Amino acid sequence: MSDVAQLNKVLDHVDADFDNSLTRLFALLRIKSISADPAFAGECKAAADHLAKDIASLGLASEVRPTDGHPAVVARSSGKSGGPHALFYGHYDVQPVDPLNLWHRPPFEPVVTDHADGRKIIVGRGAEDDKGQLMTFIEACRAWKSVTGSLPLNLTIVIEGEEEVGSKNFVPFLEKNKADLMADYALVCDTGMWDRDTPAITTSLRGLVYEEVKIKAANRDLHSGIFGGGAQNPIRVLTRILGSLFDDDGRITIPGFYDGVKDLPADILEQWRKLDLTAEKFLKPIGLSIPAGEKGRLLIEQISSRPTCDVNGIVGGYIGEGSKTVIPAEASAKVSFRLVEGQDPNKIRNAFREYVKARLPGDCRAEFTDHSNAPAVALDWNMKPLAAARRALAEEWGRDAVLMGSGASIPIVADFKRTLGLDSLLVGFALDDDNIHSPNEKYDLRSFHKGIRSWTRILAALAH
Amino acid sequence: MSDVAQLNKVLDHVDADFDNSLTRLFALLRIKSISADPAFAGECKAAADHLAKDIASLGLASEVRPTDGHPAVVARSSGKSGGPHALFYGHYDVQPVDPLNLWHRPPFEPVVTDHADGRKIIVGRGAEDDKGQLMTFIEACRAWKSVTGSLPLNLTIVIEGEEEVGSKNFVPFLEKNKADLMADYALVCDTGMWDRDTPAITTSLRGLVYEEVKIKAANRDLHSGIFGGGAQNPIRVLTRILGSLFDDDGRITIPGFYDGVKDLPADILEQWRKLDLTAEKFLKPIGLSIPAGEKGRLLIEQISSRPTCDVNGIVGGYIGEGSKTVIPAEASAKVSFRLVEGQDPNKIRNAFREYVKARLPGDCRAEFTDHSNAPAVALDWNMKPLAAARRALAEEWGRDAVLMGSGASIPIVADFKRTLGLDSLLVGFALDDDNIHSPNEKYDLRSFHKGIRSWTRILAALAH
Repeated sequence: MSDVAQLNKVLDHVDADFDNSLTRLFALLRIKSISADPAFAGECKAAADHLAKDIASLGLASEVRPTDGHPAVVARSSGKSGGPHALFYGHYDVQPVDPLNLWHRPPFEPVVTDHADGRKIIVGRGAEDDKGQLMTFIEACRAWKSVTGSLPLNLTIVIEGEEEVGSKNFVPFLEKNKADLMADYALVCDTGMWDRDTPAITTSLRGLVYEEVKIKAANRDLHSGIFGGGAQNPIRVLTRILGSLFDDDGRITIPGFYDGVKDLPADILEQWRKLDLTAEKFLKPIGLSIPAGEKGRLLIEQISSRPTCDVNGIVGGYIGEGSKTVIPAEASAKVSFRLVEGQDPNKIRNAFREYVKARLPGDCRAEFTDHSNAPAVALDWNMKPLAAARRALAEEWGRDAVLMGSGASIPIVADFKRTLGLDSLLVGFALDDDNIHSPNEKYDLRSFHKGIRSWTRILAALAH
Repeated sequence: MSDVAQLNKVLDHVDADFDNSLTRLFALLRIKSISADPAFAGECKAAADHLAKDIASLGLASEVRPTDGHPAVVARSSGKSGGPHALFYGHYDVQPVDPLNLWHRPPFEPVVTDHADGRKIIVGRGAEDDKGQLMTFIEACRAWKSVTGSLPLNLTIVIEGEEEVGSKNFVPFLEKNKADLMADYALVCDTGMWDRDTPAITTSLRGLVYEEVKIKAANRDLHSGIFGGGAQNPIRVLTRILGSLFDDDGRITIPGFYDGVKDLPADILEQWRKLDLTAEKFLKPIGLSIPAGEKGRLLIEQISSRPTCDVNGIVGGYIGEGSKTVIPAEASAKVSFRLVEGQDPNKIRNAFREYVKARLPGDCRAEFTDHSNAPAVALDWNMKPLAAARRALAEEWGRDAVLMGSGASIPIVADFKRTLGLDSLLVGFALDDDNIHSPNEKYDLRSFHKGIRSWTRILAALAH
């Protein structure tokens, strides 16, 4: 049988078996593997056990291995002689489900339902991130195994359970299991499409510096009727400092912030310009119309190739109903920076801290907490599997895959490079409106189906 | 018997009966009359009943009268022919007790205990505000009644139960009961001393404009990895606006904010300068050292005769433990302004709203809530009872009373002027460290004892 005929047979099997694929995904979605909450440790273990058992059916030697946190699943094919060896990565843990009252149905009782615009969608916590995505790969492998009795290439699968809480125990695990995890490159399914009809390969990821800053003034909360006008107010200090972080052109004012940041190569900029990502397309669905980033930059640059700053949370004083005339003793904010290639996270963190300290009135103190400190990652645009994946995706979707930068950081990609020396190929089928980390998380039924078909083709393409 | 001999006899009775005065105060403090919480409506009624019964024993016709909220107590002396007629005002309601875990003992089980510095203090919710303060007056009346069989002057007493929630139902009650409440002037015991050894009469009160502002941007919370850099962040907008409210000299930048504000008369300024209120004295106890108000003004001006602005609360985005890369859909702040004579609260409120709106990026909306809108009150420095009270206070404390401005607003003073045409005499024995509205509220035992003695003397002085 020709390669093409064989591939088509496997794709037919994917279509014929799709209802069963969905049933298997639902079984995984029903497990409440919330990694952030210790109360769900047993459910995390159950998800690992479930996956190890399921993956064993692909003919891989599969086991659950302990880490210092939630366990990981490791599975290895017995080893085809020659040919490339890929390491597939996914994570079985999911985000907490609060606020529960905003979900339209129980988050761990997945269903296929209709989106307001008629699309079929799978709704439930983890439907996309990352259970739905990782199952597109597992189901593609299952189809190959069912039809041909084996996988097209040598494969190791590793699935962790702490991605949503920073993978702190997974990186030491990688170090310790280096020998078992070595491969030629990594495959990661945790990213998105360009739009509903256009596949994408993510070739750069922004880094993340996430700082919490607390400003303290008086030794207790004060009554503003007695002390107002005389005593320093930490909210006044905090808003003054944060309010000065951007200039009128939307540029970040921290000295040295843009050091090392390079403009896009002219050809990439030209490709991006042609993508014509307008405010109408990108911002209108979320109720906005004006790009908020640096003036003079394309919107697509603002969200993917330029460094940014966001205050993700702020709190101080009285926040209940009604009014209270209090001058609080402290106020705090969570501030994050998305970094691009060329920026050093430690330098950015220190520059932010110096920026705050330089603006503190004499009576105030600042305390800082480091929540994240990850550099940006730029992938090799010429890596061999990328060409194979582009070919496969173009065949499945009928249009070229966009090589895009992602605004989000996926720290595991830097970890693979550092610990195992591996480059990663990032292919995923998420859409911007999937509500990941939010109530009513969903995955398009089409993303799940064509995602499985896409990996089926990519596996074939990678084998050569 | 000479007037002086009689007064001394009454004062001796105050001293001899002080333990009983304390017992009666404790009985009132045990009633959980929290006006803000509907669950305590029965306790508010119980406090009114208790006071009406207690005041009847002074020989006044005393009754509990309904309002559209918690009831008020009204009591009238049968009418000495001739002589002045005073209306005494206090409130029996107290603030909520949250956060309960910060109290060192149950808030409604009052005790006399030792302050860290050795002072004897009464601890419990309402110990000062306003149960302790109002009982200084009631106990002074009781002493006069016990020794002489009558009160030195015609008296009406009104005690409300909604001061801590804005007196919304009490003002219509005043209108309706005008005829019964008419007097020559009002006596209010809800203010403080200058310091532990120096009595004070409050002659001006700052007004209060209290606004809540909510900034809205996107139609839902966003993931900063996907939208960061492209989507407007309402915390960024809010901090930028609030951060610009003060210039480098601590002056408020809202156009027209200082319109109508007058400098102090030279002689008052000179008197205040001599009081030598230093940062060491006023700010050090709360852990601060640098006056935060307008540069070039005395600290005492900053806290009492100058208008101020404080952000009393701010909240937006993720405020839990750890980190979440969210761009929130909205962020809000509670902003209050202390006003002085000459400032129009409506103008200030509108100027603030215009200030915010003028700084909103195209994609953002602002919503405002009006929590308070009260003008400043300046009392007549030449009113007759003021001279009598100064005389009496100087005799009791051995030093002249300071005529001071209060940074806080006591709206009832403006209400008495507007509804009954009455000027108020504000004498009280609170200290800055009484923790009113906070856990571990206290009243110095000396404030309670010498407070009763002070009113005993003032009643005598007012009679002539």
